[in-house]
Amino acid sequence: MRQTHARLADGREIIYFDESSNYARVSSDVRVLPARATPGHTRVDPLTGEVVIMAPHRRHRGVRPGTEQCPLCPSTPFRLTEVPESDYEVVVFENRFASLGTRCEVVSYSPSHTESFGTLTSRRARLVVNVLADRTDALAAMPGVEQVFCFEDRGAEIGVTLDHPHGQIYAYPFIPGRSQLMLDTARRYAETTGRPLLGDLVRTERERGELLVAAGQHWTAFVPPAARWPFEILLVPHRQVPDLRSLTDPELDEFCAMYQNVLHRLDRIFGIAMPYVSAWHQAPVRALREYGYLHLQLISIRSGAERLKYLGGSELAMGAFVNEVLPAEAASMLRHAGPGHQRTTDHGSSASRSPTQPS
Amino acid sequence: MRQTHARLADGREIIYFDESSNYARVSSDVRVLPARATPGHTRVDPLTGEVVIMAPHRRHRGVRPGTEQCPLCPSTPFRLTEVPESDYEVVVFENRFASLGTRCEVVSYSPSHTESFGTLTSRRARLVVNVLADRTDALAAMPGVEQVFCFEDRGAEIGVTLDHPHGQIYAYPFIPGRSQLMLDTARRYAETTGRPLLGDLVRTERERGELLVAAGQHWTAFVPPAARWPFEILLVPHRQVPDLRSLTDPELDEFCAMYQNVLHRLDRIFGIAMPYVSAWHQAPVRALREYGYLHLQLISIRSGAERLKYLGGSELAMGAFVNEVLPAEAASMLRHAGPGHQRTTDHGSSASRSPTQPS
Repeated sequence: MRQTHARLADGREIIYFDESSNYARVSSDVRVLPARATPGHTRVDPLTGEVVIMAPHRRHRGVRPGTEQCPLCPSTPFRLTEVPESDYEVVVFENRFASLGTRCEVVSYSPSHTESFGTLTSRRARLVVNVLADRTDALAAMPGVEQVFCFEDRGAEIGVTLDHPHGQIYAYPFIPGRSQLMLDTARRYAETTGRPLLGDLVRTERERGELLVAAGQHWTAFVPPAARWPFEILLVPHRQVPDLRSLTDPELDEFCAMYQNVLHRLDRIFGIAMPYVSAWHQAPVRALREYGYLHLQLISIRSGAERLKYLGGSELAMGAFVNEVLPAEAASMLRHAGPGHQRTTDHGSSASRSPTQPS
Repeated sequence: MRQTHARLADGREIIYFDESSNYARVSSDVRVLPARATPGHTRVDPLTGEVVIMAPHRRHRGVRPGTEQCPLCPSTPFRLTEVPESDYEVVVFENRFASLGTRCEVVSYSPSHTESFGTLTSRRARLVVNVLADRTDALAAMPGVEQVFCFEDRGAEIGVTLDHPHGQIYAYPFIPGRSQLMLDTARRYAETTGRPLLGDLVRTERERGELLVAAGQHWTAFVPPAARWPFEILLVPHRQVPDLRSLTDPELDEFCAMYQNVLHRLDRIFGIAMPYVSAWHQAPVRALREYGYLHLQLISIRSGAERLKYLGGSELAMGAFVNEVLPAEAASMLRHAGPGHQRTTDHGSSASRSPTQPS
């Protein structure tokens, strides 16, 4: 994986990640751009102690430009985008509408506007995950960064403003509230039992079976027993590791196959490209790092072909979620949603085997 | 206020609240209804300790029936609804799609399908609040109830399934996560300072002024300094009281006028009926009750005439909210959104005076 670092016209960093060495990546950004907006700042809510990010400049983002306006497509002689090159493999650049003063990055998975993570070749999917691991390392080393969060929001139903297949990275200057809560819970469990909470949960769910979606050699995908969302899946490695950088090659290979398989199953449930949030929970950079346990949380708000889960008073004001799909029912629907896309199943990975088959 | 208790055809309780004594409220529910659905049950998320409500039967709710199908309109000779009477003032009944095994109630504010809390007469608005206070008392006395939550969700933008003006009451058999967090924070503050946290915040904001929306004799309405939403307003009584039942008549009168005034301002910002969640934070029934401080939290997801705030990975997975409207800007927009609807301003209540005017 070759990295080429450059600057956009307003000073933001752009990094090309290439597996092939056929490309020079020397194009300059010749656009005339306005000065970079003041990034967001943080405030502490006195009533809860939680940190809230204030980012008024983000109101100026456009909403869902078509291919002819997409800022993540490669530049052409007729239209200059955020990516000066005429082609690329995976590219990362600083978000023009950064929520944080530390760093917010955009990760474009492909030059093709109509791909999605699920449709990438296994090789490209693996490159994307390698890039996330690499950027996690780089951002964790920057001053003031306490937690690196790699995620993807997909789908107009959840307000995504760019359809081009991409993820994002937030380098938080604090440990966010839900992370803190999970770390505190894991710490108490480890102090009592000497074992990692999430590791024990994976073992329990592999034994019980009814919440399993995919059972691999290195990873297990399952619906959490108290899922908050119509479809919520955790992809958890069997080893407790703090972050993406700590995974071995076999673990990364199996993850990519299993994740694409789960994404295909999700899209087959209603025959609709599912809106989703895909979130990498990594250990914080410093505090409580030993209690972090890397895993991917995948959630969808769609509960039916014609039905979305909206958050109301109970969820937003009180934090009490009402889930209309039982976890065992969601897991069963995912298991029966077919073997997945050909590209991820034809190499015989254990990740695509049904968890009800002997392993 | 006269109460008439009755039963619907499937055994659910219905209670009419009338100020006038002109009505007998003797109509029976003669519908043939299916047996009541099994109510939801709760599960504890092992990774956070939070309680999640599982309510699969709620998927069978209809979505936004028109007037001709509305279950909250009064019954007519040609159509039987959830309310057997041909007219009513305020009516409460058990939710057919209850999230909880304890109790979930629907509170219809008016027989008129096209009203909203903001358009009710002051007398009717006050009756609704009296009903909430009364039901809080009754539900708190039921076995297994730990917290009574009165709230209203309004607007198709946040997924409301019934347009008829109504609120809801959840009698939780547990203390929800955000409540617990606020109570823990208030307890720590009280143990250090001897004072209620929210009371001190109100005093600070009345002195600073820039976040004020309305400053009354008994209540202050302000945007919290670390608001999570484009528009978020807290209406806080100057006395620390645990619940609605503890308010005096002058406090209730001022609240109703101020709340309707704030709702009118909210609708005037973009000239659009704003989607909102309106949530009464009351003290729990038993545990930590002394740290509860009654207040109303009003939030809207609309940040512009053409723009909604959606929650993405940072909010949903990490709990780190990104707000695109600065609290001082939101407060200023609300202060400048006009004097409000005639019905609430023509009695000269201090609640409708601009906070920048001397009080």
